[in-house]
Amino acid sequence: MSILIRGGTVVNADREFQADVLCDDGKILAVGEQLEAPVGVEIIDAAGLYVMPGGIDPHTHMQLPFMGTVTQDDFFTGTAAGLAGGTTSIIDFVIPDPRQSLMEAFHLWRGWAEKSAADYSFHVAVTWWDDSVHADMGKLVQEHGVNSFKHFMAYKNAIMADDEILVKSFSRALELGAMPTVHAENGELVYLLQQRLLQEGKTGPDAHPLSRPPMVEGEAAQRAIAIANVLNTPLYVVHVSCAESLGAITRARASGQRVFGEVLAGHLTINDSVYQHPEFEQAAGHVMSPPFRSSSHQQALWQGLQGGNLHTTATDHCTFCAEQKAAGKDNFTKIPNGCGGIEERMMVLWDAGVNTGRLTPSEFVKVTSANCAQIFNIYPRKGVIAAGADADIVLWDAEGSKTLSVKTQFSKGDFNVFEGRTVKGIPTHTISGGQLVFKEGDLRAVAGRGKYVKRPPFSAMFGALSKMHNAI
Amino acid sequence: MSILIRGGTVVNADREFQADVLCDDGKILAVGEQLEAPVGVEIIDAAGLYVMPGGIDPHTHMQLPFMGTVTQDDFFTGTAAGLAGGTTSIIDFVIPDPRQSLMEAFHLWRGWAEKSAADYSFHVAVTWWDDSVHADMGKLVQEHGVNSFKHFMAYKNAIMADDEILVKSFSRALELGAMPTVHAENGELVYLLQQRLLQEGKTGPDAHPLSRPPMVEGEAAQRAIAIANVLNTPLYVVHVSCAESLGAITRARASGQRVFGEVLAGHLTINDSVYQHPEFEQAAGHVMSPPFRSSSHQQALWQGLQGGNLHTTATDHCTFCAEQKAAGKDNFTKIPNGCGGIEERMMVLWDAGVNTGRLTPSEFVKVTSANCAQIFNIYPRKGVIAAGADADIVLWDAEGSKTLSVKTQFSKGDFNVFEGRTVKGIPTHTISGGQLVFKEGDLRAVAGRGKYVKRPPFSAMFGALSKMHNAI
Amino acid sequence: MSILIRGGTVVNADREFQADVLCDDGKILAVGEQLEAPVGVEIIDAAGLYVMPGGIDPHTHMQLPFMGTVTQDDFFTGTAAGLAGGTTSIIDFVIPDPRQSLMEAFHLWRGWAEKSAADYSFHVAVTWWDDSVHADMGKLVQEHGVNSFKHFMAYKNAIMADDEILVKSFSRALELGAMPTVHAENGELVYLLQQRLLQEGKTGPDAHPLSRPPMVEGEAAQRAIAIANVLNTPLYVVHVSCAESLGAITRARASGQRVFGEVLAGHLTINDSVYQHPEFEQAAGHVMSPPFRSSSHQQALWQGLQGGNLHTTATDHCTFCAEQKAAGKDNFTKIPNGCGGIEERMMVLWDAGVNTGRLTPSEFVKVTSANCAQIFNIYPRKGVIAAGADADIVLWDAEGSKTLSVKTQFSKGDFNVFEGRTVKGIPTHTISGGQLVFKEGDLRAVAGRGKYVKRPPFSAMFGALSKMHNAI
Amino acid sequence: MSILIRGGTVVNADREFQADVLCDDGKILAVGEQLEAPVGVEIIDAAGLYVMPGGIDPHTHMQLPFMGTVTQDDFFTGTAAGLAGGTTSIIDFVIPDPRQSLMEAFHLWRGWAEKSAADYSFHVAVTWWDDSVHADMGKLVQEHGVNSFKHFMAYKNAIMADDEILVKSFSRALELGAMPTVHAENGELVYLLQQRLLQEGKTGPDAHPLSRPPMVEGEAAQRAIAIANVLNTPLYVVHVSCAESLGAITRARASGQRVFGEVLAGHLTINDSVYQHPEFEQAAGHVMSPPFRSSSHQQALWQGLQGGNLHTTATDHCTFCAEQKAAGKDNFTKIPNGCGGIEERMMVLWDAGVNTGRLTPSEFVKVTSANCAQIFNIYPRKGVIAAGADADIVLWDAEGSKTLSVKTQFSKGDFNVFEGRTVKGIPTHTISGGQLVFKEGDLRAVAGRGKYVKRPPFSAMFGALSKMHNAI
Ligand SMILES: [Zn+2]
Ligand SMILES: [Zn+2]
Ligand SMILES: [Zn+2]
Ligand SMILES: [Zn+2]
Ligand SMILES: [Zn+2]
Ligand SMILES: [Zn+2]
Ligand SMILES: [Zn+2]
Ligand SMILES: [Zn+2]
Repeated sequence: MSILIRGGTVVNADREFQADVLCDDGKILAVGEQLEAPVGVEIIDAAGLYVMPGGIDPHTHMQLPFMGTVTQDDFFTGTAAGLAGGTTSIIDFVIPDPRQSLMEAFHLWRGWAEKSAADYSFHVAVTWWDDSVHADMGKLVQEHGVNSFKHFMAYKNAIMADDEILVKSFSRALELGAMPTVHAENGELVYLLQQRLLQEGKTGPDAHPLSRPPMVEGEAAQRAIAIANVLNTPLYVVHVSCAESLGAITRARASGQRVFGEVLAGHLTINDSVYQHPEFEQAAGHVMSPPFRSSSHQQALWQGLQGGNLHTTATDHCTFCAEQKAAGKDNFTKIPNGCGGIEERMMVLWDAGVNTGRLTPSEFVKVTSANCAQIFNIYPRKGVIAAGADADIVLWDAEGSKTLSVKTQFSKGDFNVFEGRTVKGIPTHTISGGQLVFKEGDLRAVAGRGKYVKRPPFSAMFGALSKMHNAI
Repeated sequence: MSILIRGGTVVNADREFQADVLCDDGKILAVGEQLEAPVGVEIIDAAGLYVMPGGIDPHTHMQLPFMGTVTQDDFFTGTAAGLAGGTTSIIDFVIPDPRQSLMEAFHLWRGWAEKSAADYSFHVAVTWWDDSVHADMGKLVQEHGVNSFKHFMAYKNAIMADDEILVKSFSRALELGAMPTVHAENGELVYLLQQRLLQEGKTGPDAHPLSRPPMVEGEAAQRAIAIANVLNTPLYVVHVSCAESLGAITRARASGQRVFGEVLAGHLTINDSVYQHPEFEQAAGHVMSPPFRSSSHQQALWQGLQGGNLHTTATDHCTFCAEQKAAGKDNFTKIPNGCGGIEERMMVLWDAGVNTGRLTPSEFVKVTSANCAQIFNIYPRKGVIAAGADADIVLWDAEGSKTLSVKTQFSKGDFNVFEGRTVKGIPTHTISGGQLVFKEGDLRAVAGRGKYVKRPPFSAMFGALSKMHNAI
Repeated sequence: MSILIRGGTVVNADREFQADVLCDDGKILAVGEQLEAPVGVEIIDAAGLYVMPGGIDPHTHMQLPFMGTVTQDDFFTGTAAGLAGGTTSIIDFVIPDPRQSLMEAFHLWRGWAEKSAADYSFHVAVTWWDDSVHADMGKLVQEHGVNSFKHFMAYKNAIMADDEILVKSFSRALELGAMPTVHAENGELVYLLQQRLLQEGKTGPDAHPLSRPPMVEGEAAQRAIAIANVLNTPLYVVHVSCAESLGAITRARASGQRVFGEVLAGHLTINDSVYQHPEFEQAAGHVMSPPFRSSSHQQALWQGLQGGNLHTTATDHCTFCAEQKAAGKDNFTKIPNGCGGIEERMMVLWDAGVNTGRLTPSEFVKVTSANCAQIFNIYPRKGVIAAGADADIVLWDAEGSKTLSVKTQFSKGDFNVFEGRTVKGIPTHTISGGQLVFKEGDLRAVAGRGKYVKRPPFSAMFGALSKMHNAI
Repeated sequence: MSILIRGGTVVNADREFQADVLCDDGKILAVGEQLEAPVGVEIIDAAGLYVMPGGIDPHTHMQLPFMGTVTQDDFFTGTAAGLAGGTTSIIDFVIPDPRQSLMEAFHLWRGWAEKSAADYSFHVAVTWWDDSVHADMGKLVQEHGVNSFKHFMAYKNAIMADDEILVKSFSRALELGAMPTVHAENGELVYLLQQRLLQEGKTGPDAHPLSRPPMVEGEAAQRAIAIANVLNTPLYVVHVSCAESLGAITRARASGQRVFGEVLAGHLTINDSVYQHPEFEQAAGHVMSPPFRSSSHQQALWQGLQGGNLHTTATDHCTFCAEQKAAGKDNFTKIPNGCGGIEERMMVLWDAGVNTGRLTPSEFVKVTSANCAQIFNIYPRKGVIAAGADADIVLWDAEGSKTLSVKTQFSKGDFNVFEGRTVKGIPTHTISGGQLVFKEGDLRAVAGRGKYVKRPPFSAMFGALSKMHNAI
């Protein structure tokens, strides 16, 4: 199928301009003024619309196994919901159990993901350490297109990586040209606070944020940054939710360190009052880690995005239904952590970011796709409207509006953290791999059409880091 | 003339890639792999070379009138020297005398600049205020392609703009969609320190840096930033030379303010020991404002560039000969302020920036051209290798080396602040407006070939600022 | 009269201890356990009470002339109200009109103050400059016990000191061993914002805070600090009201600069919602400069006190009645600026500071008297319970409570910014100059009993600054 | 013995004043002008001298067992050397082996210390954890006068406390009213860097600082501060040596957290060039952890002291002779860590701190004794010249000078890190427990005359922390 997008305003990270966009065979063939329409091409009238790179969500958990059950959205429904929201790629997580082979876990996840409706890739978590982990990291990078490894600094007695693992894994990642990433929360403090709160009889979801205060996140972010600094590796901090961890990143960047920060649409727009909701379902529906924060943190996060200290926006999409959340009815530590958002991310960000003047449309593209593509080295295949790029495109109606709701979402599950929010600025068409998969509310996602995206190691920054190391 | 650059590695701000570049009629016609060579095209073999956007120096003073004399480099020799160093555009300054009509001064400078060998544009200084200044700012923006205004916060009793002028001019610039810029030094403190030093008998050039300590610059930068913040304007701070002013910019950016910083190649690489030189000529040859700083400030400036808190690199190219500098033989305050550098900027930056791993080649392009083009709204005409852009291109031999010296420089004058420095990474060919004007040491600059570059107002950030204003 | 305070807990800045305190002839004669009671001594049972140095309010405007009228509290009623609140000394301000002789203004104020019921001293404002000002500063310091000079950076076209005055006056203060102080707001920005707001038809008191946003204060504080840094003078910033100016102080102190900050009881405890009050009288009653700020600023100010970046607490006591405030009924810029507080300061601070654990009782003494006495060099005459000190003492009942109200206040005027606030921790007895002037609600203030307190120049820090200057 | 110190200038933390000081029976009996001389009193003429509280060194390791040997200075020679330098108290460390009973270790150290010539106390290290440690902490605080516990965040595979121990021990300390203290270095990073350096053949003492870069210390300080913040405990960071850890403390204090910093005389005055010395003995003689740093860190540390972000000065006195140091001849990680300084601390600080104007004499007293006495709750028994205090006094000749050298030191050992430094400002007399133990070069220390100083728990700040906890 070949598609010609006619008369829109192309928005790339570096500028906006009037141009037509011609797609064929899954790729963008040409971008230019008044392109000639090939025979048989489907023409989309984009007059009055923005034409932007499809979103990349660098942080999702589709089909995540959890205590004998699994999250509501599998790789098909989750990626399909993304397409409905203008997001055409995800980077999900392979999370091996401690002592489980990384390769084994990787293949397991690859299998689950085959039904994806949109392109996908995987960060692989390092949850334990021995020589096989060291070896598998090499194999994953050199043979399987993985260029980033995740480390959980929280979840004591489960998948938590202590300093010894961090130090070994960051070092290994550097020699492989891969990016270390961290979920930054001090697991020891979380554990202690959880125990204390339970002992004090605070068992409800309102205790959840008390068990993970901002300083707990700030500490871990600072520690990971310090380790990266000493080892001369880059670092990517997932779901930065508070001023404390943002501050650590900001200081590091101001001193020239290559540290990157990701922020979730939810953390930017939802505050911690949600945990005070009298109904368990409502409060528990918002339980995720790090938790939603007070409004002053949200303001800080926006400033981080505006000032270039945060780089990507994600969702940590991980949907549990009320029945699953009810596992923690009497003990907040047992509420499965996770919220959705892949479908709403770009709308929420446009509404709260572009409409308010915090971001220009080009900056919106930076933080929804281009930066992510560059950091994870899939640029310019993804993240730009240019000849040769994948035909992953979203058409955007800045004047259109919509009220977000579980009732109208494509995502599975019975909850929507953005319930009732009316946004201005919505996707009208989504093109994924050259296919028109979403058109004005009509979702045409097809299971299995998504492709696994190999991400090569040694992005340009590794060359600089290597020179820097030699220059010292 | 049409030129095909074959087999090089194109470096843009967003990535590096192998491609040929075809130029015709002053523009880049195509960028792609194995482009077909048109008949009669001149082919340049770029194998092993980087192909980058020609440099833009956003801060020069060619042919600056000074006490009945004029700087050594006029618009021809100065821009020609730039071409020899890979710089294909300058933004110079129109500096009206107090009470002089802005339009009159603008036309005067335009006349002087007609002999330029490379493209040029002008910031216009606001050195006084009345209704005519207000009106002329409008005329300059709307009819003459000026989109930035300069304010000197130093030079008391001469061209210094006090807070009243800053406040009025910044406000006016905002409504015109133009960028306010400042030379940030507290003129009152400089004046007092100068008087004190002279009274103490400290009349030599070693007193110059003592009269302009870093805090004097930091104060003014902070003040201009605060004014911009309150008035909701963007701001561009020229020649940031010290940790104090960088700190003010960094803090403002971290809180989301649209502030931009320029740093000079000299401030990045030369320290203040030069003022201790026993020979007046040597010490005076380095007298400029702000002065060169101690090494810890240089480290801070590099970190500023690396972390994205400084955006452009310039030279403040303003060359006086020994005879002119001798005017301050007995009184350092009378030494004409200024140093050269337009020819050396890119080499010095590559050597000290890319070779050390502080910057990737793409980041080098950002800080030598792309960021400048975006901030001053001439992107993508300038600052990128892409079809449709001006054919302003430099070919770069990362392995070539050269020893910088007044003896071999193209720039006029009898002094070189980089004297004796050997750099690795040099331009081999410079193409300006589609002409090959520099080839392996052979400079073919032609007077008058440079064009005046109109810079339109209301770059994208003004749209965001306007939304932000309404959102408050 | 001689008084023996029996069985209380003495609280000094360095510690708390059980001791009796014997006062005679206006001085503290002895502090110790189980002191022998001299014949005829009046014994006060202080069991269960804290015995603390009387408060010093370093920022009041009693009997301030204003547009042909005068503030409600004169030097008698104002100091008397202070005594009722445990405050036994004030430092008021002599504010010469531009071109008025400093000596003339000083003597005028001295005359007005003779009726004071408590001890008093004066900062003298430098509102203009010529040789006579330079000379009078010397006379005031060397002959009249003035060791601090005030500079208003706001109030354009009136008493505003521009950079030239600041630079000259700070320099002069340094050679005299006197402390420069500043009211930090950028007068040019305030002026512009006021004009704009009025033009937009925003004439009510809710426009007042919009005309003086935090950045306006932060800028001025930073500028004064920079000037002090360059000139190697100490600096005292009055009524720090926001995170921006506090941040400037904090950064300066962290780099070793001798900068001190004062915070008002009102800024610590009242937020800017007061300006939204629908009744003009209520909103206008809170009009002062800097204005009350949002709650996040209050949190910052408390942190500044806790961390030692703010040093003194004051009130800027300056009371206008509703009729006077009504002068700005149609134009907020004409509302006389000022609020009361001298009577409530210590109660409000104890309640919001000590009861919350932000401050220990000793830290309370630091910020209500001891620090002030040290900074302005009247320690240990004031600010400590020790033999030899002035018998200025407050007995404090940490369990007592009171609801603050205009109905029960001793201060004149028809407004109380703390109206309705119930505090826990109240003064039971106040001793001033050895006289029991307040006892459990019974105020026995006597006009004229207060003494003028000469403050000698060259406190210890000037010795260090001088060595530092020589060491450079 | 009773002593009358006549005619000196008493310097306390809060002020300087002329007064005589009368000591009797180990205590200060009176401080006042022209005190009457009791019969038989020994009169010391202090005209022209400062009379200051004897120094307290809160960080020493006398008689420290090490690999079958022991440090050069035992409790007698070490405390005697202190007396020769004006230091009259130490707080040393009980360091149990992992699994060793805290009580057992405590009694062992108490026995060793009985021969002390000056007063002493002990921090007790928590190097492991089980219920007995929890219990022993209580016993030590409630029965044995211990109010501070030390945690080593470095020394992996030995005495390192991981986050779990930190969290448990800090919590326990809080409920006991005791101060947690940390040696802040990330042990995991140190271990990795050591292994790497050895693998690269970098075995000499110049590799020592490379194995412990500033960021390693900054990370650990930040982590301990975050833990203290979350648990609402105070924190004392020993031997802060670099801008990174100081920065963490400064930020915490600016936000109101009760964090205290200690700095060593050596870190303030010696830079890391010492590790480049070609002779092993010289370089190894300076091996301690954290290592000496570059000069910019020293400047930062002085600023920390000046601005009140560092509170105490210590030495980490821990002397090994050349033969002992030689254990690391072929492997820098085996060089016993430690340097002397107890004898020189006050002289070095006066010379580099007071003579340069960084500190006033009162500030000198703060950082050499008063702050330490307050933080560790032995004030006003120690740290002030006042009636009732211990008669621990040093007389100081600000004009006297001395060249420091191993040849003239009283301390044992064959090395002096201050070798050859000439200082101005020296002790002339030291009085310890009312005895004149040092007089103009004549040291009269007597083994066993020092007393164990019990330090009570629950200093005033714990009251505030408790209120703060309840107020949340
Ligand atoms: Zn996570
Ligand atoms: Zn996640
Ligand atoms: Zn300039
Ligand atoms: Zn210039
Ligand atoms: Zn004021
Ligand atoms: Zn005032
Ligand atoms: Zn240690
Ligand atoms: Zn130690």
